[in-house]
Amino acid sequence: MSAGRLYGVGVGPGDPELMTLKAARLIRSAPVVAYFCKQGQRGHGRTIIDGFLAEDVIEEKLAYPMTTEVPAADPAYHSALGGFYDESARRLAGHLDAGRDVVVVSEGDPFFYGSFMPIFHRLASSYETEVVAGVSGMAGCWTRARTPITYGDDILTVLPATLDAAALKRHLELADAAVIMKLGRHFPKVRAVLEELGLAARTVYVERGTMAGEKIMKLPPADFTGAPYFAMLLVPGQGRLL
Amino acid sequence: MSAGRLYGVGVGPGDPELMTLKAARLIRSAPVVAYFCKQGQRGHGRTIIDGFLAEDVIEEKLAYPMTTEVPAADPAYHSALGGFYDESARRLAGHLDAGRDVVVVSEGDPFFYGSFMPIFHRLASSYETEVVAGVSGMAGCWTRARTPITYGDDILTVLPATLDAAALKRHLELADAAVIMKLGRHFPKVRAVLEELGLAARTVYVERGTMAGEKIMKLPPADFTGAPYFAMLLVPGQGRLL
Repeated sequence: MSAGRLYGVGVGPGDPELMTLKAARLIRSAPVVAYFCKQGQRGHGRTIIDGFLAEDVIEEKLAYPMTTEVPAADPAYHSALGGFYDESARRLAGHLDAGRDVVVVSEGDPFFYGSFMPIFHRLASSYETEVVAGVSGMAGCWTRARTPITYGDDILTVLPATLDAAALKRHLELADAAVIMKLGRHFPKVRAVLEELGLAARTVYVERGTMAGEKIMKLPPADFTGAPYFAMLLVPGQGRLL
Repeated sequence: MSAGRLYGVGVGPGDPELMTLKAARLIRSAPVVAYFCKQGQRGHGRTIIDGFLAEDVIEEKLAYPMTTEVPAADPAYHSALGGFYDESARRLAGHLDAGRDVVVVSEGDPFFYGSFMPIFHRLASSYETEVVAGVSGMAGCWTRARTPITYGDDILTVLPATLDAAALKRHLELADAAVIMKLGRHFPKVRAVLEELGLAARTVYVERGTMAGEKIMKLPPADFTGAPYFAMLLVPGQGRLL
């Protein structure tokens, strides 16, 4: 018996119809489908693929060990998550060893801050592995916001809101267009930098782009406290418009 | 009679199966499908959607007026292209006025350096318009190259190879991960900068990612002259790996 094949499959930004034809085909025919989620939650990935699963599919729910945000600098974060990925990879390897193909669902694109990456690093050298590109969360956001992000020769920079104000400023000064991700509690800091650089007026706020509960608005005021972790800001380019 | 609806639809990086379910549905049911191409060529966009068109579809082929690359700084470039987009928008508006929905095919994502953007700017305020996100060309490339591009809090910068060496250096020094697009004749300049910054060893070259004739290799030597305009270089991040 030969081992199963591992697929890391991007399922797009949230709207199930923004899944690729290939993702839909692989998920429909997969004997095992795995997805990440927080403890006690269903997970966005599982919600997206609902209605695409085979009737007799084996679902592998990979629930992150932490329910609240632990700072990435904390050594406990590394060891807890590392162990979780080791164990997740072992579970999936069991299916592969038994000859079952495994699809790992990745929200957005699997190689762009993708949840599939730690599994890829653990298993891709031991099992036949294919990675299937997906529509990124940010593309879902800028299309829904009716905000073309880059023109002609624009430079785009994708920044995590976790950067300190000085670093944010340095990067935003140099870029023509920017996407600032993982907003959450970092919103006031990011907003102040955008204001200082004269970028506030053209910045767009997007939350849950392409999903139920989608919110799109101009940059909220400084006292706005409602930004979840996965909200993002879009600073569109102003490059040559023909 | 009410006017037709305008759709800007991303069709992904090249492999037709990387089209979204929504793109496939809209293209199959559209009375009019428009796509851009070079003079005398079929165009990548048309190739991707082949096999998805309705039998009685009206195809609007929008052929760029230039067959060779005119520098973007040349005023002739602006006026020729501007006039071409004006005329293209007029043709599509004719269909919309006659009540026919129009799908404009955009390779990759319609708002990420998208060919749909000049049409959007001309028609979106006059006609009901929907923009449908697509898998970007760069996501097609990094997944095919088996190269995760961004980890954790990595900063990604997308750069056109047209930048001068000093600007390329400034941006690459600051980023954790980079995608360098529109390579073509700029390859030797870009390569020298990557070498200088110690990034050459981890850079990957991709041409026609996800398409027939796909080429994936380590950074070619300095005397390599085969890079087409649409080839790209990937400099993956080295962020936290769990």
